Amino acid sequence: MLEHLIQKNSSKILLVVLDGIGGLPVKDGKTELEIANTPNLDQLAKESALGMHLPVDYGITPGSGPGHLGIFGYDPVEYQIGRGILEALGLGLTVRETDIAIRGNYATVEYQNGHAIVKDRRAGRIPTEENRRITQKLKESIRFIDDVEVFLEAGMEHRLAIVLRFPQALPENSALINDTDPQKEGRSPLEPIGKNEQSWRVADVVKKFLQRASEVLRDEPKANYILLRGFSQKPKLKSLEERFGLKACAIAVYPMYKGLASLVGMDVIDVPGQSIDDQISVLRELWKDYDFFFLHIKKTDSYGEDGNWEGKVKVIEEFDRKLPQILELKPDVLVITGDHSTPSVLKGHSWHPVPVLLKSPYVLGMTSGRFTERECLRGELGIFPAKKLINLMLAHSLKLSKFGA
Amino acid sequence: MLEHLIQKNSSKILLVVLDGIGGLPVKDGKTELEIANTPNLDQLAKESALGMHLPVDYGITPGSGPGHLGIFGYDPVEYQIGRGILEALGLGLTVRETDIAIRGNYATVEYQNGHAIVKDRRAGRIPTEENRRITQKLKESIRFIDDVEVFLEAGMEHRLAIVLRFPQALPENSALINDTDPQKEGRSPLEPIGKNEQSWRVADVVKKFLQRASEVLRDEPKANYILLRGFSQKPKLKSLEERFGLKACAIAVYPMYKGLASLVGMDVIDVPGQSIDDQISVLRELWKDYDFFFLHIKKTDSYGEDGNWEGKVKVIEEFDRKLPQILELKPDVLVITGDHSTPSVLKGHSWHPVPVLLKSPYVLGMTSGRFTERECLRGELGIFPAKKLINLMLAHSLKLSKFGA
Repeated sequence: MLEHLIQKNSSKILLVVLDGIGGLPVKDGKTELEIANTPNLDQLAKESALGMHLPVDYGITPGSGPGHLGIFGYDPVEYQIGRGILEALGLGLTVRETDIAIRGNYATVEYQNGHAIVKDRRAGRIPTEENRRITQKLKESIRFIDDVEVFLEAGMEHRLAIVLRFPQALPENSALINDTDPQKEGRSPLEPIGKNEQSWRVADVVKKFLQRASEVLRDEPKANYILLRGFSQKPKLKSLEERFGLKACAIAVYPMYKGLASLVGMDVIDVPGQSIDDQISVLRELWKDYDFFFLHIKKTDSYGEDGNWEGKVKVIEEFDRKLPQILELKPDVLVITGDHSTPSVLKGHSWHPVPVLLKSPYVLGMTSGRFTERECLRGELGIFPAKKLINLMLAHSLKLSKFGA
Repeated sequence: MLEHLIQKNSSKILLVVLDGIGGLPVKDGKTELEIANTPNLDQLAKESALGMHLPVDYGITPGSGPGHLGIFGYDPVEYQIGRGILEALGLGLTVRETDIAIRGNYATVEYQNGHAIVKDRRAGRIPTEENRRITQKLKESIRFIDDVEVFLEAGMEHRLAIVLRFPQALPENSALINDTDPQKEGRSPLEPIGKNEQSWRVADVVKKFLQRASEVLRDEPKANYILLRGFSQKPKLKSLEERFGLKACAIAVYPMYKGLASLVGMDVIDVPGQSIDDQISVLRELWKDYDFFFLHIKKTDSYGEDGNWEGKVKVIEEFDRKLPQILELKPDVLVITGDHSTPSVLKGHSWHPVPVLLKSPYVLGMTSGRFTERECLRGELGIFPAKKLINLMLAHSLKLSKFGA
């Protein structure tokens, strides 16, 4: 329905994602947002519409993929992004309609009568530096399998991402191939077998790749094999431009979020530097060029994952100090939220609803005094599914016409 | 989706159902929960996540069946339990895959040219004692119809439940048989006719049963016939163990709730006695043996149905006094809620959302001061569909893994 109501105009929407912003009490019954000293956010909260979004469903803890798809307006249950794609995006590889993305684990195998037997599924968790050296060797040795281009990128410890780029766009269901990880040591790696006609061809390329990789890695003491998991294709998502007429860009520092933004058709902007200041500079430079800006701040999540609530509080306070620079741009709609909660006490993502602040001339406001979990609960937006946030952003920027007469 | 995210662990969930707990103002604008003096619940409410669940849908008043299915995690619209099944469960009969359950009404008929004509559809609402005597006579006279075992149980006044147990499990749609109640006096009872091949065989047995029952009852002055309604089969529900890996038990006193718990695969525990103390004793004894405990307190509903708000207040206060014994067990997740509201002013079930309290280390808390309708509205859980309560219980007991990467 939403798509049919779109009326383009020149108003600008800025979506700020403080990754993993939602929290739980960490000290004196207060959450990270409640502890943080945030005079600018407090003032903004008083004038804004507040609420909480539910990323996927009650009780469901989202990964970064579903968390972002939701706030971009894509039902995260309907559009599931394969593990291989997320791994590839997270390591900075691009993925296209022609591609199969795969998660790889370096492993140690022994050959008995010519058959590989897995001795260590994680190659003794080799150091990341070691991984980089080995992956570089593979990159140089295997650039193509027949007419299929091979892209590799080292991850942490024993992990790597593999992208196989075919000459033409692949039909749907081309990645229906089983994981080759036998899950237990002492077993042979499984053969990659396609479940349908489309994936047979891909599986053939994968077999050749594994053969070549084993040869290149043969003399490695630990990482002499690669186990493959999460074969996947780029999900078919209509872009924000196609759906809502939004010319959108992403100002993110980490590869995963750039990748997720690219999946929904955002222009991904290079940020020279890693700081919030660097990101805001880019935002200012581009302000005339786009309708929709996705500004992704990562560190709130990182500290939450580490259980470091003081660190999370400091990032929130740092963002608060930068907020006036953002407000100076006078976005018609400014949303500040997260993709999910990352309470420091849980040291990980959680299922809890996520605070949302929406600034626009067309809100009630004055329901709450701060941008915190408890104050957002008192706000005018209530608790709503994340995938409806796009409706609210479009409506408040007057980009939606009336439904029915 | 939920089922795919299950990760078993040793945490324990206790679901306390105060039947019909939700209310409306009865005195000085206060509800039963607001009038009750509940120091223990008040303290617990401050530390817990609060909200309201919507049993079926806005404005929909649930029976006990849909009310409980919802909070057990089964969509009450998708899984509808036949009236015959509920009547049988309520009167303490068991129902199996081999069974057809039917609601019966004793009626008065006159025979004209060998044809029965209904004179009183409720046999003058005979006293329950009279019903018991007559039903006992039937039980002794009709144990089998061919190879089908017959179970009967007297209800209140003119009502009874009938279970026909066939030698083998019945195929689906075996209970598609019309009610025999002609709805008006002066008419003949309707023939029970199967609507499909599966139900023809059942209808034949029913005809023979009616014939035999009429003979046994022929000399009764009032209850000389049985009208049948609500032919039904046991619904196919996956158990809580199959769906969520939960080893679950029910500590309930009334047959209906034991029966509903058994439908979702809970072990139904015999409680020696009727009091809340008796139920808590059993709970303590079994604490090591299960992951999920359903503790059902009936009397809140009974007093609500009678319009006796003082009685309902007293049961709430009694439960409050027992609460510390329950808390001593240190459940990882404790939920206190109802299956529906039963406001004393309505003397029956109602459509109003039902207060929910969820205690866990992973909540915000401090949103509200008491466990009442108005205070629950201020809580962090918002108003949510009853069927999502299981998501919240599983998430807070850390039994759900992350969705997507």
